Amino acid sequence: MNKIWNIYLSGEIHSDWRERIAAGIKEAELPVSLSAPVTVHADSDDCGVAIFGAEDNKYWHDHKGAMLNAVRTGTLLREADIAIIRFGEKYKQWNAAFDAGYCAALGTPYITLHPEEHDHALKEVDAAASAMARTPEQVVQALGYIINGTLPR
Amino acid sequence: MNKIWNIYLSGEIHSDWRERIAAGIKEAELPVSLSAPVTVHADSDDCGVAIFGAEDNKYWHDHKGAMLNAVRTGTLLREADIAIIRFGEKYKQWNAAFDAGYCAALGTPYITLHPEEHDHALKEVDAAASAMARTPEQVVQALGYIINGTLPR
Amino acid sequence: MNKIWNIYLSGEIHSDWRERIAAGIKEAELPVSLSAPVTVHADSDDCGVAIFGAEDNKYWHDHKGAMLNAVRTGTLLREADIAIIRFGEKYKQWNAAFDAGYCAALGTPYITLHPEEHDHALKEVDAAASAMARTPEQVVQALGYIINGTLPR
Amino acid sequence: MNKIWNIYLSGEIHSDWRERIAAGIKEAELPVSLSAPVTVHADSDDCGVAIFGAEDNKYWHDHKGAMLNAVRTGTLLREADIAIIRFGEKYKQWNAAFDAGYCAALGTPYITLHPEEHDHALKEVDAAASAMARTPEQVVQALGYIINGTLPR
Amino acid sequence: MNKIWNIYLSGEIHSDWRERIAAGIKEAELPVSLSAPVTVHADSDDCGVAIFGAEDNKYWHDHKGAMLNAVRTGTLLREADIAIIRFGEKYKQWNAAFDAGYCAALGTPYITLHPEEHDHALKEVDAAASAMARTPEQVVQALGYIINGTLPR
Amino acid sequence: MNKIWNIYLSGEIHSDWRERIAAGIKEAELPVSLSAPVTVHADSDDCGVAIFGAEDNKYWHDHKGAMLNAVRTGTLLREADIAIIRFGEKYKQWNAAFDAGYCAALGTPYITLHPEEHDHALKEVDAAASAMARTPEQVVQALGYIINGTLPR
Amino acid sequence: MNKIWNIYLSGEIHSDWRERIAAGIKEAELPVSLSAPVTVHADSDDCGVAIFGAEDNKYWHDHKGAMLNAVRTGTLLREADIAIIRFGEKYKQWNAAFDAGYCAALGTPYITLHPEEHDHALKEVDAAASAMARTPEQVVQALGYIINGTLPR
Amino acid sequence: MNKIWNIYLSGEIHSDWRERIAAGIKEAELPVSLSAPVTVHADSDDCGVAIFGAEDNKYWHDHKGAMLNAVRTGTLLREADIAIIRFGEKYKQWNAAFDAGYCAALGTPYITLHPEEHDHALKEVDAAASAMARTPEQVVQALGYIINGTLPR
Repeated sequence: MNKIWNIYLSGEIHSDWRERIAAGIKEAELPVSLSAPVTVHADSDDCGVAIFGAEDNKYWHDHKGAMLNAVRTGTLLREADIAIIRFGEKYKQWNAAFDAGYCAALGTPYITLHPEEHDHALKEVDAAASAMARTPEQVVQALGYIINGTLPR
Repeated sequence: MNKIWNIYLSGEIHSDWRERIAAGIKEAELPVSLSAPVTVHADSDDCGVAIFGAEDNKYWHDHKGAMLNAVRTGTLLREADIAIIRFGEKYKQWNAAFDAGYCAALGTPYITLHPEEHDHALKEVDAAASAMARTPEQVVQALGYIINGTLPR
Repeated sequence: MNKIWNIYLSGEIHSDWRERIAAGIKEAELPVSLSAPVTVHADSDDCGVAIFGAEDNKYWHDHKGAMLNAVRTGTLLREADIAIIRFGEKYKQWNAAFDAGYCAALGTPYITLHPEEHDHALKEVDAAASAMARTPEQVVQALGYIINGTLPR
Repeated sequence: MNKIWNIYLSGEIHSDWRERIAAGIKEAELPVSLSAPVTVHADSDDCGVAIFGAEDNKYWHDHKGAMLNAVRTGTLLREADIAIIRFGEKYKQWNAAFDAGYCAALGTPYITLHPEEHDHALKEVDAAASAMARTPEQVVQALGYIINGTLPR
Repeated sequence: MNKIWNIYLSGEIHSDWRERIAAGIKEAELPVSLSAPVTVHADSDDCGVAIFGAEDNKYWHDHKGAMLNAVRTGTLLREADIAIIRFGEKYKQWNAAFDAGYCAALGTPYITLHPEEHDHALKEVDAAASAMARTPEQVVQALGYIINGTLPR
Repeated sequence: MNKIWNIYLSGEIHSDWRERIAAGIKEAELPVSLSAPVTVHADSDDCGVAIFGAEDNKYWHDHKGAMLNAVRTGTLLREADIAIIRFGEKYKQWNAAFDAGYCAALGTPYITLHPEEHDHALKEVDAAASAMARTPEQVVQALGYIINGTLPR
Repeated sequence: MNKIWNIYLSGEIHSDWRERIAAGIKEAELPVSLSAPVTVHADSDDCGVAIFGAEDNKYWHDHKGAMLNAVRTGTLLREADIAIIRFGEKYKQWNAAFDAGYCAALGTPYITLHPEEHDHALKEVDAAASAMARTPEQVVQALGYIINGTLPR
Repeated sequence: MNKIWNIYLSGEIHSDWRERIAAGIKEAELPVSLSAPVTVHADSDDCGVAIFGAEDNKYWHDHKGAMLNAVRTGTLLREADIAIIRFGEKYKQWNAAFDAGYCAALGTPYITLHPEEHDHALKEVDAAASAMARTPEQVVQALGYIINGTLPR
C-alpha cells in the first residue's frame, strides 16, 4: 500500500503545534500530506478586502475574508482522510468546533487536541472524535499507528 | 402547499430565546415544528451515567452523556429544514459551532443569532449562514418570510 | 397510489403563468402541491434589510435579500418532484437558469417553459430538461400524463 | 501538500478573460489545471450534427450539440475544485447561470466575474458564490490566496 | 409499524401480471401502494407529440415520449421500496432491464419475474436481484413475507 | 414536535428482549414505531424455498432465504432513526454485527445490548455505537431520554 | 488539463466494435483508458464454477459467474467518466440495458451505439443517453470532441 | 487500463491467509494494493492506552484502542475496490461481520472466505457477498479473473 494520507490541521494559530506535528511526521517518515488554513492572522482577516476591494462596514469586511478562507478550508477538509482539531488555552475558537461538526457530518474521522481545562466544554466535540490528545506528539504517535501500525517504543 | 417546516434550535440554554421564538411562531401561526437539544443542564450532563451506570472518571462520565445527547441532536438536526444557531454572551458554546459546521456539510441552511460582540470571532460561522440575527423576533420574522412570504408590517 | 406531487414553479414573475398552471391543475383535479419563490418583486428585493436592518451598500442590500430568498427556494426545490422553469420575454432571468442547473445536479426532472425566440440561447438548459413547453396549458397536460397517465382529449 | 487544483472556467466566450486568467496563473506559478467548455462558437453549436448527422429541425440541431457539450462540461464541472462563472456585457449567458446552480447543488465553491451593471440581476447567483470579482486579475489573486495563502503585494 | 410499502411494477405491458399482483395484494390485505409506468401502449408512445406538438422525424417523436415517460417512471422508481421487474415471453423489453440497473445503482431491492427460457440471458439482471419469481403469485407471497413475515399456508 | 421514532431491533431471537422493550415503550407511552426481522426461526430459514421452490443444495436453500430476509431487514434498517443491536449469550450472531456495520456506514446511530462477557470481543462494534446497554430496560430509558428528555426517576 | 478519460465499453461481444473504437482512439491519440467486461463468452459464463466449484443446477452455475462478473463490471462502470452502450443486431443484450440504467442512476453520461432497427425498442435507453451513434467511428469522433474540442475534418 | 485495485483484507488474524493471498497476487503479478487492519493482536488491543494514557476501566481501555483502529480500518475500507472478509474456525470475529455490513451499505463488493461449518451462521453475510471462497487461492483466482479476465489453467 502506497497511500499518502491527507491530514488537515484545524484550529488555534497562536502556538507551534502545527510545527511540532510536522517535525514529528518528518522524523517518523510518515507518508503524510499536511494541510491547514492560512495561519497568518492579519492576512486571514483581510484577504477579502485586499483582493476584492475595501468595505466600509466591518461585518462585510470580515465576511468577504471568511468566505474566501472557506474556499480553501472547505476544499482541504473535504479531501482530508483525518483532521486534527486544536483548541488552545485562549480565544473562542469557534471555527475549530465548526470544522469538527463539518467532519462529523462528512464521516471524516478527527482527533481533538486540547488541554484538560476544556474537557467539559468540549464534551460534544470530543464525543464525535476518534481520539482526544493532549500533545502534538501523541497526535504523531497516533498517525504512526494508524498508518504503519507502529506503537511508540 | 401544506409543508410543516422543521426548525432546530441549537445552542445557548441559559436565556429565554427558545421561548421567545416559540411564542412568536405561535402568534404568527406559522406551520413550524420546533425541536431542540435537552435544555435541562444537569440532565444533559448526567444522562449517560443515570441510565447506563456511574463512571469513576469524569471524562467518561461526560462522554457517555454527550454520546447519548448526540443521538437526539444528530437525528433532529438531520431532519431539520432550517437550524437556528444561538451564541449567548457567555460560555464557550462549542457545541453550537459544531452544529453549524454539521449543517454546512449537510447543506442545511442555518441562521445565527448572537450579539455584536461576537461578530469577529464568529465570522467563519456567519459566513456559512443564510442570515445573522440579533433578536429572536428577527428569527421569527425571517421564518414568516421564508414560509409565507410575509414581511413585518 | 396516493402520492401528492410537489411541483416547484421557478422563474419569471411578471406574467400570469403560475395562475394558469394552478387553474389548470385545479380543473384537472391533479394531486399536486405547488410551490414557488416569493413573487412580490419589492418584497423579494427588500426582505433582507426589512428584517435584519438597512445596508448602505446596494450590493449587500441585495445580498441579504437573496440569501434569505435562497432558504425558501432551495428548500422547496430540494423537495420538488418536478420543477417548471419559466423564461419570459424580457429580463435576464439568471435565477431561473440557476434553478435549472440546481435541478440537473440533484437529478430532479424539470420542464422548461419559454417562447421560441429563446430556443437557441437556452439550448443547454433545454438539453438537460425532460421537456420544453410553449404554454402553461401544455405543462398542465404534461403533469396530467405524468401523474395519471391521461392524455388531452 | 502537492495538490493540483482543478479550476473550471464557465461562461462568456467573446472576450479574453480565460487567457488573462491563464497568463496570471502561469506568472504566479500556481499549481492549477484549467478546464473549460469548447469555446469555438461554431463548433460548439454544430458538433452534434457534424458527428451524428444533420437535422432538419433547428431545435434538434441545437439539442444534439448541447447534449454532447454537456458530456464535456458536466464531467469537468463535477471534477472541479472551484469554478469561475463569467458573465460578459452582452448575451443571455444562461448556461453560465446554469453552471452556477449546478455547482451550488454539488457544494462546489465558485467565484463570479462580472461588471457592476449585472449586480442586481445576478444577486441570487452571487449570493451562492464564494466571492464576486470584477477582473480576471482578481480571480488570479484569489486563487493565489486560496492555494498558497499569498496576498497581492 | 404502520409502513405503507411502495412497490413499483416495471416491464411487460402485454399480459395481466400487474392485475394478478394487485388482486393478490388486495386479498392478502397487504399495506402496499402499487405504481407502474403508463401501460396503454399507444399513449406511452405518443404522449410527447400529443402534448408538445408533432415531429416529422420518428426518432424525435419517440424521444419526446420517452423523455416524458421517464419523469413518471424515474420519480416512482426512486420512491419505491421494492421493484418487480417483469420480462414476458416476447419483445426486447430493454426498458425493464434499464429499470433493474437503475435500482441496482440506487440500492433499491428488486425481484425479477420471468419464464425459465430467459434464465441465461437474464443472468446478470437476476444476479443483482433479491429474488427471481416465475409467477405473480410468488411475488405476492414474497411481499407477504417481507412485510408481515407470513409464509404461504 | 410530533415525530414518530423508527427503532429497529436487530439480533438475537431466542430471548424476550424485544417484548421487554416493547412493553417498556408502551408503559412510557413513547412515540415509537418498532420494527424487526422475522423472528420465527424456521420461517426465516425456509422462506426462500417455501415461496420460490426447493433447492437440493443446502447452501442455496439458505441463500434464497437470506436474500429474501435482506429485503425486509435492509429496508427497515435504512428507515430506522436508531437501531438496537442485541447479542445474546449464545450463537455466532454475525447478522447482528453485520447490521451494526451497516448502520455505521449509513450514519444511523445504534445502541448495543449485550452481557459483559462479550465486551472484549465486541469492542469494535461497541466503539461505533452511541451507547452500550446491559438490559432492555436501559434501552427504554435511553429512548425516553432521547425522545422526551426524561430521565429515570 | 492532463485528464485521462475512463471510457467503459458495455454490451455486445460478437462484433469488432471495441477494436474499432480502440484503433480510432489510438489514431487520434486521445488520452483515454478503455475498460470493458470480460469478452470471452465461455469464460464469462463459466468463471464462477471454474474458480469456486461446480454446480448441479444451471441457474446457480450462471449465478456464480454473473456475480463475479459484476464485481468487475460494477467497479469499472462506477469509475467511468463515460460509458458506451452497444446493442448489436442479435441477442437480448439485457445486460447492456442494465448498464445503461445503472449509469443513468449514477449520473454517468453514456452514448448508445446501435442500428436503426432498434430505435423504437431502445427509445427509453436512448432518451437517457447523451448521444446515439450508428458507428464506432462516430463514437471516436464524439470522444475527440468531448476531450479535445476537435471536430472531424 | 492501468488501474491499481485496492483490496482490503478483513477478519481473522490467527492464520496465514493474508500471506497466502499476498504470495498468490505476487506470483500472478496482479496490479493490486493490499491493505488490512493492524494484525499484531496485542498492539491492536493496547494502542489506545499506549498512546493516550492508561485507563483503570477495561471497557474504556478497549474502547480507546478500538476507536483508533477504526480510523485505520474505516479509511482503508472506504477506499477499497473489493474487500475480502475472512472468518476462521474460532473466535467470535464480530468485527469481520461488521466490516461486511459496512461494505454492503457502501456498495463495495466483498468476497467471504470461510470453512463450510460456518455456512449456515453466515448465510446473511454470504447473501450480501459477491462470492464465497473456501481457500485463499480461490480468492487470488477470483481477483485474477476480475482484474485481468484470466481463469485458472
